[in-house]
Amino acid sequence: MIPKLYSFWRSSAAFRVRIALNLKGIDYEIIPVHLGKNGGEQLSESYSNKNANRLVPLYETDEIKIHQSLAIIEYLEELQPHPALLPKIAIDRSWVRSIAMDISSDIHPINNLRVLRYLIRKLGISSEAKDEWYAHWIQVGLASLEKQLSADSRVGKFAYGNQPGLIDVCLIPQIFNALSAKVDLSPYPTLMRIFHECMQLPAFINASWEKQIDAEGLNPVTPPQK
Amino acid sequence: MIPKLYSFWRSSAAFRVRIALNLKGIDYEIIPVHLGKNGGEQLSESYSNKNANRLVPLYETDEIKIHQSLAIIEYLEELQPHPALLPKIAIDRSWVRSIAMDISSDIHPINNLRVLRYLIRKLGISSEAKDEWYAHWIQVGLASLEKQLSADSRVGKFAYGNQPGLIDVCLIPQIFNALSAKVDLSPYPTLMRIFHECMQLPAFINASWEKQIDAEGLNPVTPPQK
Repeated sequence: MIPKLYSFWRSSAAFRVRIALNLKGIDYEIIPVHLGKNGGEQLSESYSNKNANRLVPLYETDEIKIHQSLAIIEYLEELQPHPALLPKIAIDRSWVRSIAMDISSDIHPINNLRVLRYLIRKLGISSEAKDEWYAHWIQVGLASLEKQLSADSRVGKFAYGNQPGLIDVCLIPQIFNALSAKVDLSPYPTLMRIFHECMQLPAFINASWEKQIDAEGLNPVTPPQK
Repeated sequence: MIPKLYSFWRSSAAFRVRIALNLKGIDYEIIPVHLGKNGGEQLSESYSNKNANRLVPLYETDEIKIHQSLAIIEYLEELQPHPALLPKIAIDRSWVRSIAMDISSDIHPINNLRVLRYLIRKLGISSEAKDEWYAHWIQVGLASLEKQLSADSRVGKFAYGNQPGLIDVCLIPQIFNALSAKVDLSPYPTLMRIFHECMQLPAFINASWEKQIDAEGLNPVTPPQK
């Protein structure tokens, strides 16, 4: 069976896995899970039974069901080591993982759709305050990433050397979110240089929002439908 | 040089690394970073220069500086594979990582101190609404974990088999947070059984709040000072 990726076009976490699969040349079928329709298809009983954490992505083959984008990517890396998304040197590998997690743990979860919904529906905050929240966590996170990457000699054409890897896989979806929220990205020249480099590559282009079978709207950087 | 762990007694992420170091029998020196005093010592220039993401923990030796608790633990696992915190079988390893990340990415960051501060100081929400927020994300997350662990035959005395590993390392600090917030834990019997099992072990006991040199107050489950 061809692997299935339960995905939503705008989900950063699913976007990461799409890029990783594309970089490794692993064929896969997208199963769209709409995070908005019908109160959120990820909350349905059928999906919850596959993935108890009720988020996308979920990667499924005959052998395995894995959720959590970075756990999926670590598995893909072990299953098919080439091209490598993680460095061979242990110290560098830990550096790459730590920066990937700066994105996957310290930016993305706080701005996740379910959190934005809680802010609006339960706490009754205004749309402006929600947009400020969204931009705030992106700005805090990207400032840290820019500081780390601009100062590190391991950064090359891509975030680690001259081949795309795990940091790029996590960074590019986050930049899409930042663009869609119209965050000023001029303070992050290193990140944006890497972004533009990645967006030359089919693996990134084909994983991006507007290339998804479930994409809605024509503008890839329309504001999130929170 | 003996490794340094920049830590705060109540930080879940630092707590995870303390447990992992203890389980592996790696000696380390705690450097306390107070997340409350002086506006948060993690935001100081000297600490920011060591760790641009301005959170704890940070692990430092002559060779390496790593932040992000799971990146540190993956590094320790590579450096000193025994006792193993990750399974040998790739499918199981991905399962363990995914559940660890359910905690480290999907519960903890949303309830992090800096997020709670934003809710109170910027959004002006009440103390009660903040407590509800805190409990909500714990309940959503623990319900998912209970569903996953109660149904999985890989669970033994500990979350994976009969030796403590990465899931336990992440779960126990999260249960400390839940206890301190007086969340009803009766819906999670599998998690609580594992919690009590772990809390028999010196590696967990010695990593816990009240054993820290920077611990404040006598009650290990006093409500968080948010």
